Amino acid sequence: MGSEERIRLVCRECKESYPLERITICDQCLAPLDVEYELGSLTIAKTSYESRVKSIWRYSELLPILDRRHCVELGVGLTPLVRASNLGDSIGSSKLYLKNDTLNPTLSFKDRPAEVAVSKALEFGDRVVSCVSTGNLAAAVAAHAAKAKLEAYVLAPFDIEPEKISQILAYGAEVISVSGTYDDANRLATLASYELGWNIVNVTSRPYYVEGSKTIAFELCEQFGWNPPDNVIIPVASGALLRAIHRGFEQFRDLDLIDSVPRLFGAQAEGCSPIAAAFKEGVSTLRPVEAPKTIAKSIAIGDPADGRYVLETVRQTSGSVEAVSDSEILAAIVELGRSEGVFVEPAGGVAVAAARKLIHKGIIPKDDTTVCCITGNGLKTPELILHEPSLTRPATISPDLGALKELLKGRSPLLHA
Amino acid sequence: MGSEERIRLVCRECKESYPLERITICDQCLAPLDVEYELGSLTIAKTSYESRVKSIWRYSELLPILDRRHCVELGVGLTPLVRASNLGDSIGSSKLYLKNDTLNPTLSFKDRPAEVAVSKALEFGDRVVSCVSTGNLAAAVAAHAAKAKLEAYVLAPFDIEPEKISQILAYGAEVISVSGTYDDANRLATLASYELGWNIVNVTSRPYYVEGSKTIAFELCEQFGWNPPDNVIIPVASGALLRAIHRGFEQFRDLDLIDSVPRLFGAQAEGCSPIAAAFKEGVSTLRPVEAPKTIAKSIAIGDPADGRYVLETVRQTSGSVEAVSDSEILAAIVELGRSEGVFVEPAGGVAVAAARKLIHKGIIPKDDTTVCCITGNGLKTPELILHEPSLTRPATISPDLGALKELLKGRSPLLHA
Repeated sequence: MGSEERIRLVCRECKESYPLERITICDQCLAPLDVEYELGSLTIAKTSYESRVKSIWRYSELLPILDRRHCVELGVGLTPLVRASNLGDSIGSSKLYLKNDTLNPTLSFKDRPAEVAVSKALEFGDRVVSCVSTGNLAAAVAAHAAKAKLEAYVLAPFDIEPEKISQILAYGAEVISVSGTYDDANRLATLASYELGWNIVNVTSRPYYVEGSKTIAFELCEQFGWNPPDNVIIPVASGALLRAIHRGFEQFRDLDLIDSVPRLFGAQAEGCSPIAAAFKEGVSTLRPVEAPKTIAKSIAIGDPADGRYVLETVRQTSGSVEAVSDSEILAAIVELGRSEGVFVEPAGGVAVAAARKLIHKGIIPKDDTTVCCITGNGLKTPELILHEPSLTRPATISPDLGALKELLKGRSPLLHA
Repeated sequence: MGSEERIRLVCRECKESYPLERITICDQCLAPLDVEYELGSLTIAKTSYESRVKSIWRYSELLPILDRRHCVELGVGLTPLVRASNLGDSIGSSKLYLKNDTLNPTLSFKDRPAEVAVSKALEFGDRVVSCVSTGNLAAAVAAHAAKAKLEAYVLAPFDIEPEKISQILAYGAEVISVSGTYDDANRLATLASYELGWNIVNVTSRPYYVEGSKTIAFELCEQFGWNPPDNVIIPVASGALLRAIHRGFEQFRDLDLIDSVPRLFGAQAEGCSPIAAAFKEGVSTLRPVEAPKTIAKSIAIGDPADGRYVLETVRQTSGSVEAVSDSEILAAIVELGRSEGVFVEPAGGVAVAAARKLIHKGIIPKDDTTVCCITGNGLKTPELILHEPSLTRPATISPDLGALKELLKGRSPLLHA
């Protein structure tokens, strides 16, 4: 069976099936489309992974690119899984791990969906790609567009961090700053996709785009020696990441590569937590947040496209969705840096702060194997640390030993005798 | 043969040998000591690497940590090797590659020596580690010290970038800012090591510290399928990195894992290029640069400790040392971002600018396999890009389609019809 027949778009609701074209929504019922793979015809040996390419393309049977020559390659994926014993001791988890996706090429997990989406744009014959973004996706799309020799345009809310802008500009993309929220920029992007025919990867290529993120689940299966963890905690913005990770585990289970799917937990910032609110209330419809207010800008999506499906997924896996405050996020950033040597942007702090809550509440047992998905690097938001009053500022001294001794006076572990 | 007998410190000049203790200089002739491995007793099968740990510790037989339990692990190494066809087309190389070491845990190659040095500090029973640094090593040592639960102090020249300070603070280390150059801070560090008994990893543990960097050579051997590249271009500060990479290739050659050692090229910024100057003059002694002046602060060492050995090494491998101007460095940063989607700090630009020169001059043949070592991430120096006048600034529009169409007026590829 060729890839063309084996891989289809399928309606998430009515299950109507379509070929892999540039469509995102079911003709029949207007529900979103997902890429589905005929897994019955597929056998994958675990040992085959030993000799595969060291990037997300090692999972190519389960990605929607038909011709390998269209795959753009920046070295995405296979990010470190780190045992976080120090942090685990502090928050009461005996088997805590970090999936450090801050070490993707543009320093966030967004390289995964962007690498797939820009490859699909090549397959579609596009010359231009675009996205709507709080900054991380923009950098990822811009870098991949550069490598693929495509023009790139980014729609972003006006208040994204200058560091994220520096990345996008360095990759040669044009930044169109929208005076409004992410949701305002997103509505404009949807209009632009119809009126201007843009390939806005997280809008018009969304079924393909989201496929990239499930490689996190595949990697966790490999990195845990095919015994997946009990719990995975995932920052939630649109909800696409959590849903993709769930689909990844399900696909590896359906291929008999693993036995079971972990409990999945969503983590949001209190200042923009429509999914956590709906979970708490036990409902399935979301009340959009009009004016998000949180330091976790990269996940500040007030009207999350996949919100309903996140609720379904966490309920199905016996997980939950937690909200954490900005001060809990900042404390988690500092604690993660000091205990594990991992520097994250607020979205990463959200996952760690949620882990602390979930373990404290007993929702996650202390001896479970628990993974926090660390999604974006701290160097994308250095101001938060430079202005954090709890940290010691650098002291300046003249280059002589007297000045150094004076500065260190009374700190015994440093001194001879 | 146990590790204790198989691994020794050996004087670089008189070859006197010592056990693995906390010494850096030969008693007999005051020359620096290197870690040497009895390779005759060692057989390593290439296939054994398929199942080894996915970090620098896969090379543990050739690293100076005696007890595996002392190894600190942040997920260092196995960074992507990326084929740079677009950049290669532009600079006239048909087989150009980037070794993207900006994707180590603290976003520079310095995680390699820091991971080994902090592990050795654990082996020595230290409670405190320190370093003298232009910022990258400081972040690497701070992160590893956090993971290893050691206190960390950093001596740095006062003018290092705030982004680098944010990293160091996030990892919980104390920054001691020295009002002077790197060389001033380095002299103070040397005094402090004697007077205060500090373990300043790149001074008092230097023989161990430098061992980490040779893992770049080991990885290149693996990533090129055991056929090493013809040329490797390496940014040079103290010179330790270039020398370590050379030793790595030599050791794999001596183990019959590869046949030959590549030509090695050093790259310096014109504003601080004592080694390039000595190479050009054909001499072996360096004139230190009193007041370095370059945007490439992370390699601005006026009095490089291993300068003489860099000259020896590049001459021995038929390489050279090139100097490039700040404007060439900036142009290289922009070109690398736009052609390959890789965002680097100036030291990375130095390697690419040197590659262009070496190929243009015919010193490196166009059809050779050539690797640029990309050592530090662009998010460590975002201001350079935010203030670069050649780049288009973000335009701000209101969130409506009319405003977007107005902004894009006349850009045909974007519009329908």
